[in-house]
Amino acid sequence: MSNQTEIASLGEFGLIDRITSGLTARQPSTLKSVGDDAAVLSYPDTDVLVSSDMLVEGVHFDLTYVPLKHLGYKAAIVNFSDIYAMGGTPRQITVSLGISSRFTVEHIEELYSGVRLACDIYGVDLVGGDTTASRSGLVVSVTCIGDVARGSAVGRDGAKDTDLICVSGDLGAAYMGLQLLEREKVASAGAKDFQPDFGGKEYLIERQLKPEARRDIILKLLEKEIKPTAMIDISDGLSSEMLHICHASHAGCRIYEDRIPIDYQTAVMAEELGMNLVTAALNGGEDYELLFTVPLHDHEIIKEVEGVKVIGHIVKEDLGCALVTRDGAELPLKAQGFNHLS
Amino acid sequence: MSNQTEIASLGEFGLIDRITSGLTARQPSTLKSVGDDAAVLSYPDTDVLVSSDMLVEGVHFDLTYVPLKHLGYKAAIVNFSDIYAMGGTPRQITVSLGISSRFTVEHIEELYSGVRLACDIYGVDLVGGDTTASRSGLVVSVTCIGDVARGSAVGRDGAKDTDLICVSGDLGAAYMGLQLLEREKVASAGAKDFQPDFGGKEYLIERQLKPEARRDIILKLLEKEIKPTAMIDISDGLSSEMLHICHASHAGCRIYEDRIPIDYQTAVMAEELGMNLVTAALNGGEDYELLFTVPLHDHEIIKEVEGVKVIGHIVKEDLGCALVTRDGAELPLKAQGFNHLS
Repeated sequence: MSNQTEIASLGEFGLIDRITSGLTARQPSTLKSVGDDAAVLSYPDTDVLVSSDMLVEGVHFDLTYVPLKHLGYKAAIVNFSDIYAMGGTPRQITVSLGISSRFTVEHIEELYSGVRLACDIYGVDLVGGDTTASRSGLVVSVTCIGDVARGSAVGRDGAKDTDLICVSGDLGAAYMGLQLLEREKVASAGAKDFQPDFGGKEYLIERQLKPEARRDIILKLLEKEIKPTAMIDISDGLSSEMLHICHASHAGCRIYEDRIPIDYQTAVMAEELGMNLVTAALNGGEDYELLFTVPLHDHEIIKEVEGVKVIGHIVKEDLGCALVTRDGAELPLKAQGFNHLS
Repeated sequence: MSNQTEIASLGEFGLIDRITSGLTARQPSTLKSVGDDAAVLSYPDTDVLVSSDMLVEGVHFDLTYVPLKHLGYKAAIVNFSDIYAMGGTPRQITVSLGISSRFTVEHIEELYSGVRLACDIYGVDLVGGDTTASRSGLVVSVTCIGDVARGSAVGRDGAKDTDLICVSGDLGAAYMGLQLLEREKVASAGAKDFQPDFGGKEYLIERQLKPEARRDIILKLLEKEIKPTAMIDISDGLSSEMLHICHASHAGCRIYEDRIPIDYQTAVMAEELGMNLVTAALNGGEDYELLFTVPLHDHEIIKEVEGVKVIGHIVKEDLGCALVTRDGAELPLKAQGFNHLS
């Protein structure tokens, strides 16, 4: 680690100057960005969306295999994803960091380079935050501000009986990527110059380390004039998120096992690890795909939208929430997803 | 510790249900509060202010003498203060918590009871956040959303030559409160049933443990139709904040030692500890008073505002920033304030 600068040599304000140098506001809604007590924004014609997420070292990420730039990227993406899941567009973020003494200025710059890359790609302004010491690990707390046409925010609570349940992309890959990284970490323990072998599994690694938010799906739905009745992003696993929608909407659901989209690499990895593939797809978290419901009459349009799959339908609340297996059996849907507090 | 509930027994969503039960939105700008991917807000006629702060155990607070309810209160207040320091009004907050395993559900409820009390008093809605595990101490990350009349946000960058420098309340008391608490902590180490003696120093303790944001001053300025040219809240000490204003405004300043407002208890405590009183008032942090500049022609009005004192004036940038001592000497103003990263 050559040419590393100790944070204490710059101090808090010096560090903030380094991190925020060259920041420019792209969004017309950003009137004033970093450098004051608060950012100043303007949303005269739209509703404002606000979402917060906290990532903690040793709980949400392991720096032995997560590069800091990827961490910064992901911290931004998971917040953008929350805004898209309301049918909105992310516009600004604030990033607060708790930093332990083992980090240098260059480390923090690397983390912010990931945040900035995500902001560049998704057209979001970094407008503020806080930087402080932490007694132990790294803590990244992000708040994202976005907007949506007035009165058009899509909540979790609008799913209706007979609505179609749709999901974007494929599921379980980020979870399998995590298993793979954990396996290689164990294999590499103590070994010098260990080279992990991710050949043929690059997709799983990318899904875990560099997830994307599904802006493309939101744009396609707008283009096709499909307005979801309920929507959520899949951070804790399909089962858990589906139950959130059903609970908030006072509805039940039927999800068809054979309709759940799963990538080939995910299936190969599950086989290798001797894990049940459907369990992984139902409960593996961090896919950041969109789960949403649309009225039945949109069926002909939604089935033509690339990257979206209809996986089931909403039923009356008293029928409960179930997975319909390939042989037609109904298993109650359970939330066994990521629960960092259990 | 009887009747304590383990967090794992509720899980993340059970805990969130407990914390958010009975929450009602008071602000007309809060369209949708907790319980979805994002809160939905409406600000059609005003500019939106956003500010974030992170508090870390062992860095910003010591739970051996900071009650959790006070911590929650203070975490909210310091963010409200940032919004007031822009001339605005706080409307919503999101609170994200990183919780280590030693905390119970009741602990978290106590912390939130402080957040809620602050919200009740200042009329702010708690609209979201995140709750997650932490490998070590407690981390509290708050984002506050507020608003201000369109185009009326008061930044740090508007101070002009000859403007008067004003400060609310008195300075150094929160810092002295911290010294007192630290002293009693050392004295009580190992002692069973130790009763700290804060007699006659209650004000110092209150300033440290239960600070208030100066909404009252913002209202008085509005009422008197005084619009500050620059404003900041004093979280890191008068010197540090004054230098922020001067730096952003490309200006210099003269602050008069004998004009700095200091409470009697602060002076007594400094005497007891053998500390220089003015140094404590200049550099002691966490007073959350407002430091602002007003045009010289407002002098007759501002000097009549209760709780505000004129302590100096802005000069041209090339004259630098100085403290004018009682004997007329000019000492360069230096930021020696709280720096959690040094």
